[in-house]
Amino acid sequence: MRNIKLTIEYDGTNYAGWQLQSNANTVQEVIERALFRTLKEEVRLIQSGRTDSGVHALGQVANFRTKSNLATHKIKDALNSYLPKDVVIKKAEEVDFNFHARYDTITKSYRYTILNRKPRSPLNRYYATFIPYPLDISSMQDAARSLVGRHDFGAFQTKGSKVKNSTRTIKDIRVRKRAGFIYIDIEADGFLYNMVRTIVGTLIEVGRDRLKADRIKKILKSKKRSLAGPTAPPQGLCLVKIRYK
Amino acid sequence: MRNIKLTIEYDGTNYAGWQLQSNANTVQEVIERALFRTLKEEVRLIQSGRTDSGVHALGQVANFRTKSNLATHKIKDALNSYLPKDVVIKKAEEVDFNFHARYDTITKSYRYTILNRKPRSPLNRYYATFIPYPLDISSMQDAARSLVGRHDFGAFQTKGSKVKNSTRTIKDIRVRKRAGFIYIDIEADGFLYNMVRTIVGTLIEVGRDRLKADRIKKILKSKKRSLAGPTAPPQGLCLVKIRYK
Repeated sequence: MRNIKLTIEYDGTNYAGWQLQSNANTVQEVIERALFRTLKEEVRLIQSGRTDSGVHALGQVANFRTKSNLATHKIKDALNSYLPKDVVIKKAEEVDFNFHARYDTITKSYRYTILNRKPRSPLNRYYATFIPYPLDISSMQDAARSLVGRHDFGAFQTKGSKVKNSTRTIKDIRVRKRAGFIYIDIEADGFLYNMVRTIVGTLIEVGRDRLKADRIKKILKSKKRSLAGPTAPPQGLCLVKIRYK
Repeated sequence: MRNIKLTIEYDGTNYAGWQLQSNANTVQEVIERALFRTLKEEVRLIQSGRTDSGVHALGQVANFRTKSNLATHKIKDALNSYLPKDVVIKKAEEVDFNFHARYDTITKSYRYTILNRKPRSPLNRYYATFIPYPLDISSMQDAARSLVGRHDFGAFQTKGSKVKNSTRTIKDIRVRKRAGFIYIDIEADGFLYNMVRTIVGTLIEVGRDRLKADRIKKILKSKKRSLAGPTAPPQGLCLVKIRYK
């Protein structure tokens, strides 16, 4: 048995997210179907993390175990010939048999893109969230700084998730504006359900001065979801990179 | 009567081009329909230039005459509320009654985007043409230089167009590579049918060394379409800017 690691880019617009579902088209499903055609073997992918409907990925990672002896570059080329145009395998590598795409993750990096000018942009409609009113970048940067470090992010997750421990470490958040776009880059050792989108929704509230930057620490302490901002829409979000040992 | 100039961005992916057609969805049609809802008056748009199916625009320009007294910012807002997500009016301005979006054009600028790395990119599939084999930028730049100036571009148009005079002036062509993408920016006083895409198709042949850069002058002189390269696909093309007096 070999263990193969895949690095994957996809446009999430037409998918009901990453994870297999009985009634909807998902990224995991189209890749597992392409794997079956390539290897004539049913394999189950282990992904680093799920992404929701409409969320994109430049560097999703998944692994699978196979009896096949097919060279990894041939696996990659065959998969890419079977996959639809909105999913691609960027890299396929044989890795240590114990490598696990989820458990071995050290950090994940997401980018959230906001189009912050008027009017909306047809060419960016699936890849950026449009916010026409002015946002104050420097107060968003202040608020972001309060989130960096090891905290209980209970206030920044969508309720109903089964995770018991909601403590995570954010290594870095960068908020930058360039040519009408605001980019929010977040790297953490892990993310709770909808954590990036709740952080972004909260930073947007700060940027439009509905929430003061110095409230962030209190929101963290409270662990109350109701005190944080709304969940920002999915189409601005992209899973950029997963780091492993 | 007032004369209103519109600056328009659109994603051409789901349109059969700009120009009205009886059996297909076109950009002109959706804007004229939105104008009818806004002004309760049938108006006909005069565009700077048509674009083909799959071609995008950041700065298409069109004008129309109307009896309406509605303020231009209200016309813009109403149009944008009626238009689909893949078309937007970026600017609406009242202009001199004699302004004509086509005849008054001084230059037009197009950008053609090539993704020149492996593998293909789902997130750019509608906005860049994917070319996996290596392209030599400096010979493409040499070839591009031969095209700058006033020439008969008969060899660089799709046959069947009714234009009698095929002489045009290319003000500038820039070919640059950045982060796996090649950008070809062309500004001219006008373009023949498929001229940008034929120039790009020819530059690609030069880049992959199927055609020598010094052949370009001979191809121009010959006026034979068969000597130039193939017509590059539409999805890499974007009408960026129209200049007026």
